[in-house]
Amino acid sequence: MHNLFEIDEWKIYERSFDSSKQVMAESIFSIGNGAFGQRANFEETYSGETMQGNYIGGVYYPDKTRVGWWKNGYPEYFAKVLNSCNWIGIDLEIDGEKVDVHKAKVKSFYRELDMKEGVLTRSLKLQLSSSKEIELVSKRFCSMQNDHIGAISYSVTPLNFSANVKFEVYLDCNVTNHDSNYGEIFWKEEDKKVDEREGLLSCRTKISDFVVSTAMRYSFWKDHSKLVIHPNTIEREMYVSNTFEYFLEKGTCYTIKKYVSIVSSLNHKEFALSAKAILYVSEAYKKGFNVLLKEHINAWKDIWNQADILIEGDVRSQQAIRFNIFQLFQSYTGKNSKLNIGPKGFTGEKYGGATYWDTEAFCMPFYLKTADSNVAKQLLLYRYNQLDKAIENAEKLGFSEGAALFPMVTMNGEECHNEWEITFEEIHRNGAIAFAIYNYLRHTNDEDYLRVYGKSVLVAISRFWFQRFNWSEEKGAYVMLGVTGPNEYENNVNNNWYTNYIAKWCIQYTLDIEKNSTFGPSLITEKEKEEWEKLLEQVYLPQITNSNIFLQQDGFLDKKNQEVKDIPESEKPINQHWSWDRILRSIFIKQADVLQGIYMFEEHFTPEQIKENFDYYEPKTVHESSLSPCVHAIIASKLGYVDKAYELFQRTARLDLDDYNKEVKEGLHITSMAGTWLSIVEGFGGLRISESDLSFAPKLPKEWKSLMYKIRYKGLIIQVFCGKNDIQIQHNGSIDLKFLLYGKEMILKADDKLIVKLDSLVKK
Amino acid sequence: MHNLFEIDEWKIYERSFDSSKQVMAESIFSIGNGAFGQRANFEETYSGETMQGNYIGGVYYPDKTRVGWWKNGYPEYFAKVLNSCNWIGIDLEIDGEKVDVHKAKVKSFYRELDMKEGVLTRSLKLQLSSSKEIELVSKRFCSMQNDHIGAISYSVTPLNFSANVKFEVYLDCNVTNHDSNYGEIFWKEEDKKVDEREGLLSCRTKISDFVVSTAMRYSFWKDHSKLVIHPNTIEREMYVSNTFEYFLEKGTCYTIKKYVSIVSSLNHKEFALSAKAILYVSEAYKKGFNVLLKEHINAWKDIWNQADILIEGDVRSQQAIRFNIFQLFQSYTGKNSKLNIGPKGFTGEKYGGATYWDTEAFCMPFYLKTADSNVAKQLLLYRYNQLDKAIENAEKLGFSEGAALFPMVTMNGEECHNEWEITFEEIHRNGAIAFAIYNYLRHTNDEDYLRVYGKSVLVAISRFWFQRFNWSEEKGAYVMLGVTGPNEYENNVNNNWYTNYIAKWCIQYTLDIEKNSTFGPSLITEKEKEEWEKLLEQVYLPQITNSNIFLQQDGFLDKKNQEVKDIPESEKPINQHWSWDRILRSIFIKQADVLQGIYMFEEHFTPEQIKENFDYYEPKTVHESSLSPCVHAIIASKLGYVDKAYELFQRTARLDLDDYNKEVKEGLHITSMAGTWLSIVEGFGGLRISESDLSFAPKLPKEWKSLMYKIRYKGLIIQVFCGKNDIQIQHNGSIDLKFLLYGKEMILKADDKLIVKLDSLVKK
Repeated sequence: MHNLFEIDEWKIYERSFDSSKQVMAESIFSIGNGAFGQRANFEETYSGETMQGNYIGGVYYPDKTRVGWWKNGYPEYFAKVLNSCNWIGIDLEIDGEKVDVHKAKVKSFYRELDMKEGVLTRSLKLQLSSSKEIELVSKRFCSMQNDHIGAISYSVTPLNFSANVKFEVYLDCNVTNHDSNYGEIFWKEEDKKVDEREGLLSCRTKISDFVVSTAMRYSFWKDHSKLVIHPNTIEREMYVSNTFEYFLEKGTCYTIKKYVSIVSSLNHKEFALSAKAILYVSEAYKKGFNVLLKEHINAWKDIWNQADILIEGDVRSQQAIRFNIFQLFQSYTGKNSKLNIGPKGFTGEKYGGATYWDTEAFCMPFYLKTADSNVAKQLLLYRYNQLDKAIENAEKLGFSEGAALFPMVTMNGEECHNEWEITFEEIHRNGAIAFAIYNYLRHTNDEDYLRVYGKSVLVAISRFWFQRFNWSEEKGAYVMLGVTGPNEYENNVNNNWYTNYIAKWCIQYTLDIEKNSTFGPSLITEKEKEEWEKLLEQVYLPQITNSNIFLQQDGFLDKKNQEVKDIPESEKPINQHWSWDRILRSIFIKQADVLQGIYMFEEHFTPEQIKENFDYYEPKTVHESSLSPCVHAIIASKLGYVDKAYELFQRTARLDLDDYNKEVKEGLHITSMAGTWLSIVEGFGGLRISESDLSFAPKLPKEWKSLMYKIRYKGLIIQVFCGKNDIQIQHNGSIDLKFLLYGKEMILKADDKLIVKLDSLVKK
Repeated sequence: MHNLFEIDEWKIYERSFDSSKQVMAESIFSIGNGAFGQRANFEETYSGETMQGNYIGGVYYPDKTRVGWWKNGYPEYFAKVLNSCNWIGIDLEIDGEKVDVHKAKVKSFYRELDMKEGVLTRSLKLQLSSSKEIELVSKRFCSMQNDHIGAISYSVTPLNFSANVKFEVYLDCNVTNHDSNYGEIFWKEEDKKVDEREGLLSCRTKISDFVVSTAMRYSFWKDHSKLVIHPNTIEREMYVSNTFEYFLEKGTCYTIKKYVSIVSSLNHKEFALSAKAILYVSEAYKKGFNVLLKEHINAWKDIWNQADILIEGDVRSQQAIRFNIFQLFQSYTGKNSKLNIGPKGFTGEKYGGATYWDTEAFCMPFYLKTADSNVAKQLLLYRYNQLDKAIENAEKLGFSEGAALFPMVTMNGEECHNEWEITFEEIHRNGAIAFAIYNYLRHTNDEDYLRVYGKSVLVAISRFWFQRFNWSEEKGAYVMLGVTGPNEYENNVNNNWYTNYIAKWCIQYTLDIEKNSTFGPSLITEKEKEEWEKLLEQVYLPQITNSNIFLQQDGFLDKKNQEVKDIPESEKPINQHWSWDRILRSIFIKQADVLQGIYMFEEHFTPEQIKENFDYYEPKTVHESSLSPCVHAIIASKLGYVDKAYELFQRTARLDLDDYNKEVKEGLHITSMAGTWLSIVEGFGGLRISESDLSFAPKLPKEWKSLMYKIRYKGLIIQVFCGKNDIQIQHNGSIDLKFLLYGKEMILKADDKLIVKLDSLVKK
């Protein structure tokens, strides 16, 4: 696969400007801080192809346009992730010519995202149509320490002239979204103020009534001296700016240091919003750029200290895993209980909503292992707090007696997506939410959580599953009709194996919890218990006769038999070349589906079953969901298909960096980045955390010299080093740790370090 | 079923005002003329619940908002049927109080739609808050003779006072649609003029760039004397009006006669549009209200003369069939080759687009039998002219070699709907278009049409079908995966019997045409011929083992077995009470599906097959598609289930009048009204037109004394009278007509009348 940008273990960078890559670069070089974030748009005017994007956690617009025909039970709205105030804007004008990288001659260009420090830098030399040449250097970040602050240092050096240059420093909320009617505007002005070297813009989202206040201050410098300027102020609808002209001397560097604060009514009372924005930006201004930057870098240092993975011998992989970890923490830090992890984070507007099953199935295991258990608990409580709405949602769909269906997409517990085959039928999400509770328990032993919160969620979900099955006379079994599995390249199918399986597991797990008095009094009736047990005996799970292969769904064998290698390169990804109906009726699988189930419940299956299903489904899987290759990579590792695992790992790890699915323009695949982390730690790192055991069975790809990762487990931080010749494991606890290494029982004493030579072990 | 409005053989009327029925009444009392039309909104201000609607044939807005996630191959836009300029507006103000039926006390109220004359009348007495009482009488029509003209006579009589009254006569294009984002405006002003007693408003649709010019003139009368007034003119954005005050004397009638012309850039050059509107309205003004009305009534007289059906003994049925015929001709007259028959005609905005398979499957047989064959031919040519776009559309979906998929919904040949399960999968529409050609031939023998136009359409459609099947190893047959049949309560199913059947028939019919040298040289290759013939031998058609019952689709027998009578009344219609997924996985059928196929290809099936399938499917059919009960009614008649047929006939005939599906507020079901006509003529009237025969086998419901209908057949107009004791058939031709009556061969001499006593026949 071709690298879009340069390879470095801590940086993404490029050394020249290619306008055809600009929209992709805007995605890849995105920065954020868990509260807000933005695409890597230029500060100054850019007239080439661009996708402008500034996004604020939790702020959405309830689009009610119904393009199709109304279907009963549909959500009231589709929650658009809203492009919001452009706060980076700094325009330059020289001799009446606006500086514009698209129009000027680019003499040199360097752009860098430093992932260690979380800083986006750009430095370039431009020749204008007047032959004047300038150098621009910009550096900006969204503060991880103060998550309402952003800062920019923007320098201009005239290279071959001295002249008056006009600056315009602004805030602009005249912004649109891509997937709406022609130029539809979702904001209206609420408040604005502008004065010399400062400005405030408060805008309100239409209908959803969020108010976002953005305040700016800036200073202007000649080298290291602050200059006194008296700019003109400009106010327009949803726009405030300062303009000033200054005579720039040839060869001298002039810098605007722009500070911005962004606060929203999601977290603050409207009454004081403008005041808070002004206060925060003043504090930032007083600290100054360098202090803010230092605080920001320190915050990143703490994150890297707990979450970094070290790969020796393979810089592409090293860069990739850091990019994945970096973008995850830019999207979600666990600081704000109202937020969750949107599939595009703060890098694009696609999909809408903020919370998907991705959170439980992929992000939860990541945060469980890389952050304090409170972060995972907060994600679970987010769902628990929305249980009433999930019950209401199920009622709307005809379920009763406290059955719950959690939303497929949500901002606040309400379903906010409206494709029926997703919203109404992709019900496996309920299973992932139940599984996350089970998984949390395996990692933390937090029985209190289960007793007080988790159990009621499990019961409500199991009630849903029970009602969702129906008896088939034809099959003599309970069947589940009309569902969409994780593989969204099939819609509205009967007996999706994964969904049937996780539903069955969920009911069984809930019954087990119910029977264990440790977890408090029973929440279900005797009748429910009996009915559930009866159902569990007769759940239909499709399987190919006389084989170990679980059948993705009824009717799968009617399809034309093909493999991914039969698809011409020019038709990949098929979702950009084939129409939806063609994809649906083809045999091709978007995303792990049977294998997703095998991954989650690995200990239920024999090695033969795992192998046969992998061998059957992998050749049919196009991995056009970002959530797919990581799961296949982990199973491939397990099966000892290390080369295949490495190929799949590259695909998940460098999905966006190398734009495998040709859609990076639209933003990054944030949630699947957690899957990348898992594909290292559970794949090559061979980590398994089951109810009874912690185990390791690392298998490094030949490209790697060594791998080091850390995990949190039942209060410990365990560091695992996997070299070519030895495995080294240590932890920070005061107790002895029992675990399996390649199936062999080991005990690691507190404060000790276990070093196991590989040749002393017989690998399984 | 409860009657919403009063019963009369020529009128719909009501004698009192019920604001809760207003939105329904606005639909039912709609008027139109094939070029434009409108809901029965009030002329004066009405602050109660209302759905304002003025619609102009062919004028739409390409909504691009994509609520769901993008799927490749999706149409670029959804064509919204646009609410357009309100041209009926006449406001009254007395003592500063706006006259408003919602706020005043309604002392008496009468509203009438005269279907014979096509006139909407309203007369009412109001008491205002000042205790002043007035009488209002309005009469309006959309001229069938001059289809760019509308006219209103609006009278006011002060009953218990004399005072100054303020009038405002206006055109207003500040209108919105219901199914769009909050108040989104789709029009922008292009041109306006206003002067004393006249005004012009030209507005342009955003993006789609249609211009519609509406001009008005009016006069003001005291009894029969025209008064001289000097009104003030008002211009606002997309609004022009005249206001004037006049001292009205107690007990005297004052009348505004308002004339409007409406022309659009669909039919005229933009350059002269305003001028044309002004010219046309002047002509209308000069003719005056009474002359225009007379012309309009005469035009209706001609229509009724050829299309009326007489039912003796059952006024509800008589009213209903006239309502259906009336609304059909209000929606489509066959005058403009650019127009087609939208499912809501000019009575609502739901669904979008103008052309559906309804045209070929339901409207075509109606127009074939009630109008000159040129009307049906024009509808066929509409599709022929769009063949290139249908081929392009199929190419987008991955088909090749000239395969065509006609759009599910269109304004101009481009697909303009975007629910994938409809647009991409409801491909049976291609079959209906092929069938319409076959049907047209059966009615007209127009072999020239087939040779020059029809054959290329058939070949392109058959190519599509051939490519759409795939070979199933599992079944050892050709299967068709991922389709939606006419029964839209199933989506994305495999082997929909109806679709497989019509596809197979279509390929066979095309091969038959290909082999007949009468129809010109072959358009397909020898290889195609061979492949098609091979496929025809092995098309999979699902059927219940050891029975005559054709299975709607694969997996149908896994459903929970239920009948419509098991659904609680409070949950009907299920589409308003059950969520979509629940409907999909239930056994309930929205609309004839297997029975639709049996209806179309009746002669292919034995009486036992027809009976068993009807008995199996009718109890499972909720008839929540307007297109359903008519088909069941015809089959029930055929099977001798006359009471059932009558029940189903009421359901189709009075679907809107009695609001069976609780959705009449949204507009009328125009296209299904053709099905109502068929359920009389082919149902009780027992008419069949096959390739070889014309036949009649009337079976009247016991409620009817007699039935009279006329049909066009191969150039003849045949009149059929079915009494309790005899059948009388006559025609206008100069040749002898052979036909079957209850299966017995008959010959009707030219200009003769055949009277057959029923007791002389043994009925089949």
